[in-house]
Amino acid sequence: MRVIVTGAGGFVGRHTCKALIASGHDVVRLDRALMPAPASESIEGDLCDPAIVTRAFAGGCDAVVRLATVPGGAAELDPLSAWRTNVDTSMLLTEAAARAGTCPKFLFASSIAVFGAPLPPEGVDDDTPLAPRLLYGAHKAMIESWIATLTRRGEIDGLSLRLPGIVARPIAPSGMKSAFMSDIFHALRGGMPFVSPVSAEATMWLMSVDAAAKAFVHALAAAGPLPGDRAVTLPALRVRMDELATEIARQSNARTGLVSYEPDAALETAFGALPPLNASRATDLGFHHDGSTERLVASALATIARTEGQK
Amino acid sequence: MRVIVTGAGGFVGRHTCKALIASGHDVVRLDRALMPAPASESIEGDLCDPAIVTRAFAGGCDAVVRLATVPGGAAELDPLSAWRTNVDTSMLLTEAAARAGTCPKFLFASSIAVFGAPLPPEGVDDDTPLAPRLLYGAHKAMIESWIATLTRRGEIDGLSLRLPGIVARPIAPSGMKSAFMSDIFHALRGGMPFVSPVSAEATMWLMSVDAAAKAFVHALAAAGPLPGDRAVTLPALRVRMDELATEIARQSNARTGLVSYEPDAALETAFGALPPLNASRATDLGFHHDGSTERLVASALATIARTEGQK
Repeated sequence: MRVIVTGAGGFVGRHTCKALIASGHDVVRLDRALMPAPASESIEGDLCDPAIVTRAFAGGCDAVVRLATVPGGAAELDPLSAWRTNVDTSMLLTEAAARAGTCPKFLFASSIAVFGAPLPPEGVDDDTPLAPRLLYGAHKAMIESWIATLTRRGEIDGLSLRLPGIVARPIAPSGMKSAFMSDIFHALRGGMPFVSPVSAEATMWLMSVDAAAKAFVHALAAAGPLPGDRAVTLPALRVRMDELATEIARQSNARTGLVSYEPDAALETAFGALPPLNASRATDLGFHHDGSTERLVASALATIARTEGQK
Repeated sequence: MRVIVTGAGGFVGRHTCKALIASGHDVVRLDRALMPAPASESIEGDLCDPAIVTRAFAGGCDAVVRLATVPGGAAELDPLSAWRTNVDTSMLLTEAAARAGTCPKFLFASSIAVFGAPLPPEGVDDDTPLAPRLLYGAHKAMIESWIATLTRRGEIDGLSLRLPGIVARPIAPSGMKSAFMSDIFHALRGGMPFVSPVSAEATMWLMSVDAAAKAFVHALAAAGPLPGDRAVTLPALRVRMDELATEIARQSNARTGLVSYEPDAALETAFGALPPLNASRATDLGFHHDGSTERLVASALATIARTEGQK
């Protein structure tokens, strides 16, 4: 398949492109800035520029993977700019995909932020109503709905994948309020102390970036009856913060006592109180999480090691 | 209350402004073009112009009524322009309302188009999932979701009112696929033949423009627990096309035999196959439909007569 990936230069984007290429797809990488990568076409520019969109679709389009986003914290700081990227540009991309005339697959990176916070303590499943509180989550919910409409109209073949916390992102100003979930990996791996902004008992939904990349590759091939709203919550491991810390320290041979807890009430509510997740829709379609905290941590640490090796 | 009404120059807008003024509200009318009207402030311009928005909100804001829209047929012909008006401009208006700092009421004119077509034959109620097929309906569903989010955030006090077919609109190129519902009033009242594009047995959800205007006035005062998604489907009369024709002819003293039927399959599916409607959420909040086909027709004909009297 010729797959156009937007946000290809981002963290999830880089890993998804690699996984797509490894699966034999022709990948068109699109982003404002891109590092060189083998076996793919690269287009640097902004999707708001019609010439860029025309270039990307010129060679045909079997699928689009829409990853670029202004995440939670950054969206709250600049709502109008976030709207442009998250809402308007997503629409422009669906328009281009529809115009391709091939009813291409359209995979949209949505987020568990569509469920809002606090979440129902008894758990979240595929019938939990969407009730975002972050602008970012609201943008995702709106585009999910838009993609479902265009799919009903037969213009695209859409699927929104709701991603949990993806680890371990690089240490960088990402605009993500949930950055602490990745920062703990970098800290303990480097033998540095880490002050957790959520409690030891905080529960999070996590997925390694490799598992996320695999989910996008799988979604291109996913067969079976897709739900009417064309959205699935990806399976995620539900991990306690102290158990995560212990496992990272163990695999990193870090000394004990590096982690202390100074919970921030807002972060605890938004990211540290995630109830049990029943993602049976996605599981039935063949999507998987990392399998265990041990494997999640191993995968995340391996990602960091690979990235450092490339420097 | 100081109520800012956008789309104040449109059909529903003119009647809503009149009803708001009659109820003692201070009305700020906003549209690209406005006829003079007593007892209200008028601002002509485009909401995309920040200066216009600033002017509208300068005197304070207790409530916003968002009526302007690019309707079904017109939106299909120019999707990008419809997106700008229906989605982007609605967002800009919510932003301005949120910035007012008073958590103003925000009434959004949504549409039964959010339910899509064909509708479940057994009926529609407050639990029927949204599944728009028209771009217009998709835009409405997205902004409903956006308004619910901003309401959860405490930035506005939103409510989306899903309007059924509103009669009798003026004869004019309105961009509405459902224009036939109004055209039949004008034809029979003038003693002219009318070819119905839906069958005699077609069932429609209708409301007079006076009842719609009353719904907006009522919504400003509506007390009681509002639903979490902050959207209500307004009660509507379910009327058969032949019964509507008979009642219009009777009240207009029109001769019989003026109406013939040449159903168009697409219009019949979209507008002529509306199942029973249970709008109990709205009814519980004190919203009403016209009460009977007789009263609906009387109200619609009176609207036409008043408009003609003003010419």
